[in-house]
Amino acid sequence: MRVGVLGGGQLARMLALEGIPLGHRFTFLEPAPDPPAGALGRVVDTAYDDPAGLARIAAASDVVTYEFENVPASSAAYLAARLPVLPPPPALEATQDRLAEKRLFRELAIPTAPFHRVDTPDDLDAALAVAGLPAVLKTRRFGYDGKGQAVVRSAEEAAAAMAALGPGLIAERFVEFSRELSVLGVGARDGSRVFYPLTENHHREGILRVSHGPAPGVTPELQARAERLATGIMDRLGYVGVLAIELFQVGDDLLANEMAPRVHNSGHWTLDGATVSQFENHIRAVTGLPLAPPRVPGPAAMVNIIGELPDPAAISALPFAHLHLYGKSPRPGRKLGHVNITGRDADEVAEGIARVCAALPR
Amino acid sequence: MRVGVLGGGQLARMLALEGIPLGHRFTFLEPAPDPPAGALGRVVDTAYDDPAGLARIAAASDVVTYEFENVPASSAAYLAARLPVLPPPPALEATQDRLAEKRLFRELAIPTAPFHRVDTPDDLDAALAVAGLPAVLKTRRFGYDGKGQAVVRSAEEAAAAMAALGPGLIAERFVEFSRELSVLGVGARDGSRVFYPLTENHHREGILRVSHGPAPGVTPELQARAERLATGIMDRLGYVGVLAIELFQVGDDLLANEMAPRVHNSGHWTLDGATVSQFENHIRAVTGLPLAPPRVPGPAAMVNIIGELPDPAAISALPFAHLHLYGKSPRPGRKLGHVNITGRDADEVAEGIARVCAALPR
Repeated sequence: MRVGVLGGGQLARMLALEGIPLGHRFTFLEPAPDPPAGALGRVVDTAYDDPAGLARIAAASDVVTYEFENVPASSAAYLAARLPVLPPPPALEATQDRLAEKRLFRELAIPTAPFHRVDTPDDLDAALAVAGLPAVLKTRRFGYDGKGQAVVRSAEEAAAAMAALGPGLIAERFVEFSRELSVLGVGARDGSRVFYPLTENHHREGILRVSHGPAPGVTPELQARAERLATGIMDRLGYVGVLAIELFQVGDDLLANEMAPRVHNSGHWTLDGATVSQFENHIRAVTGLPLAPPRVPGPAAMVNIIGELPDPAAISALPFAHLHLYGKSPRPGRKLGHVNITGRDADEVAEGIARVCAALPR
Repeated sequence: MRVGVLGGGQLARMLALEGIPLGHRFTFLEPAPDPPAGALGRVVDTAYDDPAGLARIAAASDVVTYEFENVPASSAAYLAARLPVLPPPPALEATQDRLAEKRLFRELAIPTAPFHRVDTPDDLDAALAVAGLPAVLKTRRFGYDGKGQAVVRSAEEAAAAMAALGPGLIAERFVEFSRELSVLGVGARDGSRVFYPLTENHHREGILRVSHGPAPGVTPELQARAERLATGIMDRLGYVGVLAIELFQVGDDLLANEMAPRVHNSGHWTLDGATVSQFENHIRAVTGLPLAPPRVPGPAAMVNIIGELPDPAAISALPFAHLHLYGKSPRPGRKLGHVNITGRDADEVAEGIARVCAALPR
C-alpha cells in the first residue's frame, strides 16, 4: 500500500521504518530540507497547504496519515475528499485548540483541571476565579514542548503573561500531581482496539526527558480507568490509529491534560520494549490490517537525546541500550534521537537510565 | 557514517532498516530495477564490476559491505584500495569456491564430510573413493538455495551429474545428519566477538523454510564447540561483521557444511527474537561501533515466504507473528519475505509456526 504522511520528521521516519517491512511505500509532505524521513521514501517539499503539493501526495498515496496535529483544516478537507485521511479529521479539530480539547473531555465526563477561556481582561478575572492560583496560562493553538505556557501566581503575573502570550488563551488550575502518565490506545478500521501499558513521563524545561514503560506501580484498576477514558474519545471521534492522552495522576485519580492524534514521544520505548511498537500498530490501523496486541516482556525506558549528539560508541557500549537517531543536526532544545533501555528487572533498567544519562552530553 | 552495500536485495534492505536508526546513510550498488533496498537510500544501478559504478559507490561511502559473497575479485580489490571493505576480501576468496572453503575448514581442523575436487573423469573416480556413495556433487562456484547440486547413488549417476553440472565440481559424502544447525558469529574491528545461540534450520527443495532460534536442546558444550569453529575462521580471516556457518549435527558431532561472509537467512529470527538483530550487529561491526551481546528472552522461529505472497491481514491477525516483506514481486521459488514468531514457550511458538504455515499460500 502507498502511505502518505504529512510531515517528514522523526515520527514519520519511525512510521516508515516500521511500515516498510509490512510491504508499504511512503511519500512525505515536508517543506523543510533534508528531513529525517527523507531516506525512507519520496518527499514532496511544498508547504502543508500548497495545492500542488497536496495534489501530488494525494496522487502518490492510497491513505494519508500525519505526524503532527496542526495540519491546516483546508488541507485535511482537500485530502479527505480524495482518499482516506486517518486518524479522521475530527481528531485534528479536537486537538488543534486546547479549549476544544478540554471541552470534549468535559463533555465525555473525563476529569480535567478546572479551566476557562481567556480572550479579554474580563475573561482573565473569571478564569482565575475558576482556576484559582497558581494557574497555568496556555496559548490555545500551536503550543508544544512547553512553549506558549506560563505558570502565574498572582493576578498581576496573569495579566503580564496574557500580554506576553497574546490573545487566544486558556487558563487552567496548576495541578499538584504525583506523576505524569500517558495512555496510548490504537483503534482499527473495524472498531477493534488495543492499548499499551501506561507510561510514566518526566519532563524538564517543558520537554520530555525520560519515560518509564510500563509505568511502575500501576494497578489494573488504574490501567482500566485510563483505557476507558481513551475509549470514550476514540468512540466519539470514530478513531483510527494511535491516540495518546497525557494524564496527571493525583492520588488515585487521573486528570486528562492533553491528547495527540498520532504516535507520541512517550511511546518510543515500545520500539524495543514491546512485541509490537506504536509505529507498527499505527501503520496497521491506517492501512486496514488487524492490530497486534502488544506484549511487554519486562521493564523498559526511554531517554531523549536533546540538543547535542552523544558519542554513538559510548551509547552502543552500554548493555541493553538501543540507539535511535533521527538524522537531525544539533540545535539547543531539539530532539535528535532517543535511547531505549530494556532489562530483566527494574534495577537493571534504572542502572541503564543512569548510565545512558551519564553518556549524554552535559 | 555513509555505508555502501554491494547488492540491493532483502539483506541490504534489512541492513539499512537497522542501520538508519544508528544514524547511517546507505548507498546500494545494484543493477536490477526497483530493488528491495531501493526505498532506503541511493541506488547506483550498474553492474557489480562496472568501473564507473564502483567509483560512484566508493565516493558515496565511508565503508563498504556486501550482501552476497560472489563479489567480483576485481571489484573488491578496487574498493579495498580506496576505503574499508568489510568483511575483509579474504573472506570473499574463502567462500566463493566450495573447494577453497572446505580446504580452509580442514586446515583449521574443523570437521567436514570427506570431499574431493572433481574436474576430470579421473577425478570423479578418486572423489567417489573418498566420498563414498551416495555422494553429493556440487558446483564449486555460484551455487545457492540448492542450485548446482546433485545427489548421486552410483558411478553412472555421478558421471551423468558431472556432464549436467559441467566442470569445476566438488564431491562430498552424503551426510546422514540428525539436523542442520547454523552458528552466527560477529567480529568487531577491535577483535571482540559476540555469538547468537545456534539456530536449527529446515530446508525443502534446497530452500530454507523454517528456522528455530534458538535451536532446542543445545547443550552449552555444543554451543561452545560451534563458537570455537567460528572463532577459528574469524581469527584466520581477520573477520569483521557477521559470519554464518551451516553445520550438520551427527550425534554429538558438528560437521561444517558451508559458510557465508554476511548476514544470513537463518538469522532473520533475531529481528524479533533477540535484543539485537544480526543486521544491527553487522552494521555496528563494519562501522566500528561496539557490538551488542544478544539476549534472547524466549523461543522464536522464522518461516520464509516463498514464491507467492500471503494475505497480509491473515498473517497480521496471528498473535506474535511479525511480518517482514521484501517488496519483491512473486515468482516461483523466490524469497519474498519472512514471518517471525515469538512466544512465551516452545508450545506457543510451535502453534505459531503451524498457524503461519497454514496462512501461507499452498
